[in-house]
Amino acid sequence: MRKLTVNLGRRSYDIVIGYKVLPEFGRLLRKLKIGSDAVVVTNPYIRKLYGDRLENSLKEEGFSVRFEEVPDSKTSKSDKMCLNLIKRIALYDEQRTLFIIAFGGGVIGDLAGFLASIYKRGIPYVQLPTTLLAQVDSGIGGKVGIDWTYGKNLIGAFYQPKVVFSDISLLKSLNLRQLRSGLAEVIKYGIIQDEGLFRYIEKRYLGILKLNENDLLHIVLASSKIKAHIVQKDERDTEGKRMLLNLGHTIGHAIEAATKYTLYSHGEAIAIGTVCAAQIAKILRLLSPDSFQRIENLILKVGLPVKIQNVKLTEILKAQLHDKKFIGRKNRFVLQFIGRKNRFVLPVGIGKAEVRENVPLEMVKKVIKSRLECT
Amino acid sequence: MRKLTVNLGRRSYDIVIGYKVLPEFGRLLRKLKIGSDAVVVTNPYIRKLYGDRLENSLKEEGFSVRFEEVPDSKTSKSDKMCLNLIKRIALYDEQRTLFIIAFGGGVIGDLAGFLASIYKRGIPYVQLPTTLLAQVDSGIGGKVGIDWTYGKNLIGAFYQPKVVFSDISLLKSLNLRQLRSGLAEVIKYGIIQDEGLFRYIEKRYLGILKLNENDLLHIVLASSKIKAHIVQKDERDTEGKRMLLNLGHTIGHAIEAATKYTLYSHGEAIAIGTVCAAQIAKILRLLSPDSFQRIENLILKVGLPVKIQNVKLTEILKAQLHDKKFIGRKNRFVLQFIGRKNRFVLPVGIGKAEVRENVPLEMVKKVIKSRLECT
Repeated sequence: MRKLTVNLGRRSYDIVIGYKVLPEFGRLLRKLKIGSDAVVVTNPYIRKLYGDRLENSLKEEGFSVRFEEVPDSKTSKSDKMCLNLIKRIALYDEQRTLFIIAFGGGVIGDLAGFLASIYKRGIPYVQLPTTLLAQVDSGIGGKVGIDWTYGKNLIGAFYQPKVVFSDISLLKSLNLRQLRSGLAEVIKYGIIQDEGLFRYIEKRYLGILKLNENDLLHIVLASSKIKAHIVQKDERDTEGKRMLLNLGHTIGHAIEAATKYTLYSHGEAIAIGTVCAAQIAKILRLLSPDSFQRIENLILKVGLPVKIQNVKLTEILKAQLHDKKFIGRKNRFVLQFIGRKNRFVLPVGIGKAEVRENVPLEMVKKVIKSRLECT
Repeated sequence: MRKLTVNLGRRSYDIVIGYKVLPEFGRLLRKLKIGSDAVVVTNPYIRKLYGDRLENSLKEEGFSVRFEEVPDSKTSKSDKMCLNLIKRIALYDEQRTLFIIAFGGGVIGDLAGFLASIYKRGIPYVQLPTTLLAQVDSGIGGKVGIDWTYGKNLIGAFYQPKVVFSDISLLKSLNLRQLRSGLAEVIKYGIIQDEGLFRYIEKRYLGILKLNENDLLHIVLASSKIKAHIVQKDERDTEGKRMLLNLGHTIGHAIEAATKYTLYSHGEAIAIGTVCAAQIAKILRLLSPDSFQRIENLILKVGLPVKIQNVKLTEILKAQLHDKKFIGRKNRFVLQFIGRKNRFVLPVGIGKAEVRENVPLEMVKKVIKSRLECT
């Protein structure tokens, strides 16, 4: 079992990473002294797979356990679901000392973390992520929130968990597409900050895709370190440091919005966005042709897309214009490359990235066009 | 213009208190650099009275100003109103740098502060309180939230404003009942921490009730100092220090709940609760009969109730039992005196109070009974 710490003063917490460590979870929580009554927010699929193991681990340490299920869907991250959950929890609460366990992927982490942040002015919560994406990215850093008709992540908070507990063995239930979606973020970490991690994926991608224990441990640990490091420096995303984590997200979000969040998974859209950013960097002579090629090759090797199918350039641009009405934080990225002052995270090597403003719109268009594939 | 600081590290802010200082408000905000586009959450009554003056002050300093009105009612502090406001603000937002001005009493301060805390993971807000209660109590300290069918203040956050700006002259529009409701909290401050303030009210209560400028300045300044001091020591209400602010609230909330928040204003209920707490303290020989008498006399002098009308003891006790299902933070106080482990803030002199647990239920009942008045 490995342990990292996210140093945020009073809001510091550990990230615990291991293989088949779920049985240890109850004991670890007991040491944290965060309450005696666990409310586990999860979906029916995860509960069926791992619910009993979690419950045993908690009950052995004397916690009471209550499961609250939400559907296994992106749309569970809604205001209605959040209020409904709070109602259910309030009726159950009485004089208990509750804490929340977010047991699932990014949707459940965001939803459960947000409800913890507003229930009785904030109660403790912990992240128990079951997807690669949540273990390496969304589970760490305290960005929680819900989506809404009027904007993705329009309603949310910065609210740090008391611990992030990543049991690698839980990833066995992921299908290949979910695994790849998480890998897109891992590759991103390699590009922006860690050439060693990038090389590791180049070398071991087959092992990773086969869910090899050591390979998964390695990439989750390396990614968590980078995320923790950046969050420490810029907890509330105001110093420009957390911005680096948005490599690939400017165009990635535009693609997601243009396809109404249905055609591409988040990781797939980010993979395409990352290749586009690398290509822009190459044209601007910030990135060598060799490095660009390594990035494109790696994304292809792990089975992520580097071409945009079934979307037209005009649709991507239109999606942004349309999104002007909807002003979620994420949608601001969407606007960034057609606004007067666009902003891109661009790789300037493998393991280093920079924020650049005012990339010529024609260049952006040209790069996206070169990625379009007619079907 | 007087200035106090609430020292909370990075979340520190000033409380500015003065008479007819609204014209200075825009200039002060400009210095704070909190954004360029003001969204003023207020009610139609306040807007009609002071809206133009506020708008002028802001526009002179180059701010854009948008008013968002909510009805002048306790029920405006609801989930529906909050979501509706966020929707209106999101559609207006585009790429503005918004901040929120809470322009009204406690309901507006709580609602607007809470929406600021969750909109785009938190945007800046300022308190511009227009009631005595909000200037001396609810506007300071960052407790924000909304009420809900399932519990008062069940949903909320600790989210500090960037400044609290108390223009005493705005209190001229208060009716006597509203003024007295605020005075109940001022008397509370005197009892728990400041004998000088208590004596001041004893001496100058007629001036206060006539809205004498110097008297109001004196009590708002003294009260704000105490509130700021306690909040500094216990921002998130976890150290037991903020608990002292609940003098009179244990029984006060029970009375409010028993009468469904309609018969008594918050201050009136707290006044009765304060006399009850003082009476318990007298019986327990923590408070001298003389001091008890001074407390009861002062509450009577300013025109606040010391007797409970139109409520039966059983209704007060029943209200608590009923409220067991509804677990708002406030309702925990309601439960406190019939639970196994009740907890009271009790005055042990004028200017000093203590938290006491396990006050015999029979004694509590006897004291409440002695305060019941048949009509």
